[in-house]
Parts: sequence; C-alpha cells; structure tokens
Amino acid sequence: MTKPRQQIPKATVTRLAFYLRELQQMQRSGLANIQSRSIAERLGLNDSQVRRDISCLGTVGQRGVGYRVEELIESIQRVLGTDRNWNVILVGVGNLGRALSGYRGFQQQGFQLVGAFDSDPAKIGSSVGSLTIQSLDRLPEFARSNQVDLAILAVPADAAQSVASQIERVGIPGILNFAPIAVQASSSSRTIIQEVDLAIELQRLAFSVVPKSN
Amino acid sequence: MTKPRQQIPKATVTRLAFYLRELQQMQRSGLANIQSRSIAERLGLNDSQVRRDISCLGTVGQRGVGYRVEELIESIQRVLGTDRNWNVILVGVGNLGRALSGYRGFQQQGFQLVGAFDSDPAKIGSSVGSLTIQSLDRLPEFARSNQVDLAILAVPADAAQSVASQIERVGIPGILNFAPIAVQASSSSRTIIQEVDLAIELQRLAFSVVPKSN
Repeated sequence: MTKPRQQIPKATVTRLAFYLRELQQMQRSGLANIQSRSIAERLGLNDSQVRRDISCLGTVGQRGVGYRVEELIESIQRVLGTDRNWNVILVGVGNLGRALSGYRGFQQQGFQLVGAFDSDPAKIGSSVGSLTIQSLDRLPEFARSNQVDLAILAVPADAAQSVASQIERVGIPGILNFAPIAVQASSSSRTIIQEVDLAIELQRLAFSVVPKSN
Repeated sequence: MTKPRQQIPKATVTRLAFYLRELQQMQRSGLANIQSRSIAERLGLNDSQVRRDISCLGTVGQRGVGYRVEELIESIQRVLGTDRNWNVILVGVGNLGRALSGYRGFQQQGFQLVGAFDSDPAKIGSSVGSLTIQSLDRLPEFARSNQVDLAILAVPADAAQSVASQIERVGIPGILNFAPIAVQASSSSRTIIQEVDLAIELQRLAFSVVPKSN
C-alpha cells in the first residue's frame, strides 16, 4: 500500500531520490527489471532497507524478476513530485550561481531554470546560459507574470537573509539556500526553506574519515 | 557524558554541523552564552532535540545562563574532527570545481585546498585561486609527497567512477563526490565516499513544496 506522502520520513525521501538517479541510469543502459539487491549494492545500503523504502511507494516486485525499472521510476517521481516540471529561478549569479545554472542534473530531473537575478549592476543585462541576468528589483514583477515554484539562493552570506525575505514576499513557495548561512522564513510565510551548505558536507565526511595529516 | 563518536547517528552529526555554523556566527557578533532554545529557533528545530544533540558532546549548560558559546564550538569541532586542519584536493576544475574552490565556507571550517587536478590539457598549468592546475597523471606523486586527507570530486558523470578509483588507489581516505552519479569504492578500499548531488537537494525540497505552476 502506498503511504500518504506526509508520512514518508525525510531520510526515506533522500534515499528515494538516490534510487531514482540509479534507476534512470539503468534505464538509459537498457535495463527493464531490477532487484532491490542490485540497487542496495550500488548505493552501499542493505537490501531490506531498500525494500522497505520501495514499499512506501505501493510498487510491488515479482519474486525472481524484481521490479520494473520504468514503473519504479514513475512511482518515485510521483512521490517526490518530480513527475511534472518545476520552474526555478536563480538568485545570485556569482561563481557558485553560475556553476549551478549549468548543472545538467537539474534539467534532467525536471527543474527548469526560467530566470536569473543579481543586484550587481555590472552583471545585469549579461547572460548566464541562455538567460539574461535581471535586476533583483524586477523580481516581484517577474514572479507576478511567471509561475515560479522554487528559487535557488546563491548570494553572499551578508545578503542572504534580506534576499530570502524578498523571495518570500513575492510568494515563491520554496527556497534552496546555498549561501553559507541559515536563513529563516517569517512566521506568516508558507515558503519552505531548505539549507544546503557545502562545508557541512565536508564536515560530515570528515566525521567518518581518519585523516592522514596531523 | 560524551558519547563515543561511532555511536553518534549521522543525522545528529549533520545537525551538529549546522549548530556549529550558527554558534560561530554568534561568536563573531560577540555573544558569550547561548540557550538551546535560541539555537533551536534559528534553525527551526525544537528545543529538546537541540538539548539531546548537545548532550552527546558531554557539554553541560547552566540553568538560566545556557551554554558557553566558545566551549560548545570547541566540543562540536572535536566531535566532527574539524578542530584540526584538513588537506583537501580538488579533482575536476570545470564550472562547479571552480566555484567550489572559491567557496569561503571551506577554509573557515578548516578545509585547506592544497592541490587542483584536471585531465584537460587546456586547463593544466593555468590557475584556480592561488593554485596551479596539475595533470591528473601527477596525482600519485602529489599524494606521496603531501598528506592529502580529502578529495573533492567534480568531474563529469562519465569520468566519475574511473577518477574516483584513481583517488582511491593513491590512498586518499575520503572523497566528496559532486559528480551527478554515484561512485563506488572497491571492496578492499578504506576510502569513504560521500555523495553530494545538487539535484537531489532540489528533489528533497520539491517533496515538501506545493508548486504554483501546473
């Protein structure tokens, strides 16, 4: 039986996104069926964990044959909400913003970059990928005339909170924050903010590693 | 009482890294003491969660006064292993690699970029930040004469596995993989690989957000 989305734990969601990536790769290489064990091995997880996660989707495997790759991909995308396109804007076009705008993985997963904004007059009017960088002042107007689902925030730490509040005020429902500082939604807002901190990824890795240098 | 490091769950480690970032910011703004409640509010967590996490550190707060910011920072860094410097190399100097090399947050947390490698002859010899990009062929020699703790892998998907194996063979203990594909350590290796996938962060956010567009 499919679990209601709100009952699926965040850790399961993260693993499902990783399964999806592996499954899409398997599909590209022509595989039609897959055993949970193969997914588990590729990701360094154990088999029962993978089976438990997949059971949240309501997708049933067949003994000896496994799961249909296509069906599993569709179920995961339905649960993640990526069975549709998402309109994404980039706010902050420094080095990181520029790299993120060219990140192929986004488009492959249905995230479409529809606008790029910066407050630096030297950048406004120049291009990033196929987009022209617009002044941040134009964001309210842009958000009124376009359906913007998510904003990628890649501004410096000292600007992050105020720019996040601007994004929130124009009613964009989700912010992925790459600034190296946490930002907060106002209590009245429905905007969901997810923090990404690249140094935190290194710290998590450092926790598990025995270093060579001293 | 301090918990042994290996008993601290990965989710707690991640939260500790986020606490650290907030605490360092508080310290820079001159704050000497902090209540768990303030940390919780800034990060949108609940107070008891924060207190439980801090109790893993063996750090004790004082009723009405809270925790000493400096002491808490030191305890978290000790647990994460970032109370020392980590020597990091960058492998793959495309857009993303270049952005990562300039990411201020890394150095602030003790991660020192000591080398940059690429296989593109057009890039070798040019610079990224204060480093000269070296040929990937020189990695074994470099790893012999320098203590390299971690490698940031930022190569295209189709090169990721083979380059990861090269890094592993030269005995670098940790890889942070930014390539949009999972890579695996060989069974005999002690190298720990942590996957970062920027699209997965967007997918996790999409799961929680009600989109505007249809």
